[in-house]
Amino acid sequence: MKLNQFIEKYSKIIENNLIKLYNNKNGLPVIEEAMKYSLLAGGKRLRPLLTLMTCDLFDGSIDEVLPYACCIEIIHTYSLIHDDMPAMDNDDYRRGKLANHKVFGEGFALLAGDALLNSAYEILFDCIINDPSIEKIKAASIISKAAGLNGMIGGQAIDLYYENKKIDIEKLNEMHSKKTGALIKAALEVGAIISKASEEDLERIRIFGENIGRAYQISDDILDVIGTKEKMGKTIGKDAQNNKSTYVTFYGVDKSKNILFDTISNAKKALAYYDCKANILLELADFIAYRDT
Amino acid sequence: MKLNQFIEKYSKIIENNLIKLYNNKNGLPVIEEAMKYSLLAGGKRLRPLLTLMTCDLFDGSIDEVLPYACCIEIIHTYSLIHDDMPAMDNDDYRRGKLANHKVFGEGFALLAGDALLNSAYEILFDCIINDPSIEKIKAASIISKAAGLNGMIGGQAIDLYYENKKIDIEKLNEMHSKKTGALIKAALEVGAIISKASEEDLERIRIFGENIGRAYQISDDILDVIGTKEKMGKTIGKDAQNNKSTYVTFYGVDKSKNILFDTISNAKKALAYYDCKANILLELADFIAYRDT
Repeated sequence: MKLNQFIEKYSKIIENNLIKLYNNKNGLPVIEEAMKYSLLAGGKRLRPLLTLMTCDLFDGSIDEVLPYACCIEIIHTYSLIHDDMPAMDNDDYRRGKLANHKVFGEGFALLAGDALLNSAYEILFDCIINDPSIEKIKAASIISKAAGLNGMIGGQAIDLYYENKKIDIEKLNEMHSKKTGALIKAALEVGAIISKASEEDLERIRIFGENIGRAYQISDDILDVIGTKEKMGKTIGKDAQNNKSTYVTFYGVDKSKNILFDTISNAKKALAYYDCKANILLELADFIAYRDT
Repeated sequence: MKLNQFIEKYSKIIENNLIKLYNNKNGLPVIEEAMKYSLLAGGKRLRPLLTLMTCDLFDGSIDEVLPYACCIEIIHTYSLIHDDMPAMDNDDYRRGKLANHKVFGEGFALLAGDALLNSAYEILFDCIINDPSIEKIKAASIISKAAGLNGMIGGQAIDLYYENKKIDIEKLNEMHSKKTGALIKAALEVGAIISKASEEDLERIRIFGENIGRAYQISDDILDVIGTKEKMGKTIGKDAQNNKSTYVTFYGVDKSKNILFDTISNAKKALAYYDCKANILLELADFIAYRDT
């Protein structure tokens, strides 16, 4: 299967599964609407697709991996809601639509984020009750660690702390590797571990994950300078407006592109062992290098 | 053991365990400080004590139950941080100290809450990796459901939605039962289930939990009218200032006290089966009825 076929087939399955997961709640309508508003806002579903891609590489069962993949997307979505709030990045738009707090107010946006994060763990425990295998438990633990203080939240904290402060390139790398990289790496690992990949396999996947996580962030920084609001669905040039340090402010656009291509090359090397069996992941790496949205 | 001896002995153990759990992080100092500021602000530790009390009743191992008890307190703490924020209750004080966002700013308060919630699940998965017994998995699942949209967050959403709106007594009860009751009931259940209580035991504990959860909220409403800021460590009379409906606005102080005593009596009846073996929980029920802080 080619990358675009894979994405077309499985992003629909992910979408349907996300809709199903939030279909049977019996709470206050407004909070459920707020949760679904952001969750079903047409994201690229990169993270859950990565989980299904490593599942495919290691001949795992898509059905078994799917709820884990969706939980990662749910956690990613909560982080975007909280990140957009005035206390954090103060963004009015996300994925071409008004940010959650602009539609539902800050209170419900806060709670919708909390509820999404918490519901991911509710779903994970349900999965583990159904199948308490050590792979499933470890997969859930990996997700929780990637989302936490040593992962995504830690990265958000660094980002917030260095607003209007000078950051060096090491700290910038740490910030990116935690804020964006950790959950991307976890997405890949989870698909592999549930599909019973070996420790050597997992190590290769981690190296691939670290590199494409970094590449994704570099391309984000580049697109914030050379992208368009229409394609990106969010405000462009925000980093410069906010005096934010990025790869581009450190290295300029051209050198950042070179670093991006080197990083993609390192990612692909890590999967050379699997030859064309890893084609979808290799194509994905190229897609990140050349993406314009 | 008497209730005050139990509380003295075990609240120290809980406190030390909470300190230990947050001692080995390697993130940005400010976010860790923000987390510890609220977590170690000298709460009553009611919820983890409840967990240890049912563990004691069913002759379970305190060591095994302790991290689960602490995770419930961690989740309770995150909810207080987010609840105090301007977008929610807009409270400047909590437990006699400035609210988290008044000290660290709204951005870090938001992230500290997120990090606490997430870390509770990181800890729970670590526990389950160490001992993947069905009781431990179910206990973690119970905690997650009590904290979520059908529990605490659902209750917070109802609370927020009905600010400055007329609420009827059924909705008020639903709000309390979710916002405060769910986690209190879960705390009791978790101690029982890990200590291998039977389904009949669990049903008795749930009825006890529902009633003391409700009683706790009624006494909260009463104390907001007749309590003092010095004893409570928070602003008094806030419900009236905010035009909030409470048990007292529906029934007045005297009738609310009668409902409180009836509710406590129902709680105690649920544990009659255990006779004096349940003394600590029975004493605790009376303590809630007559508390002044």
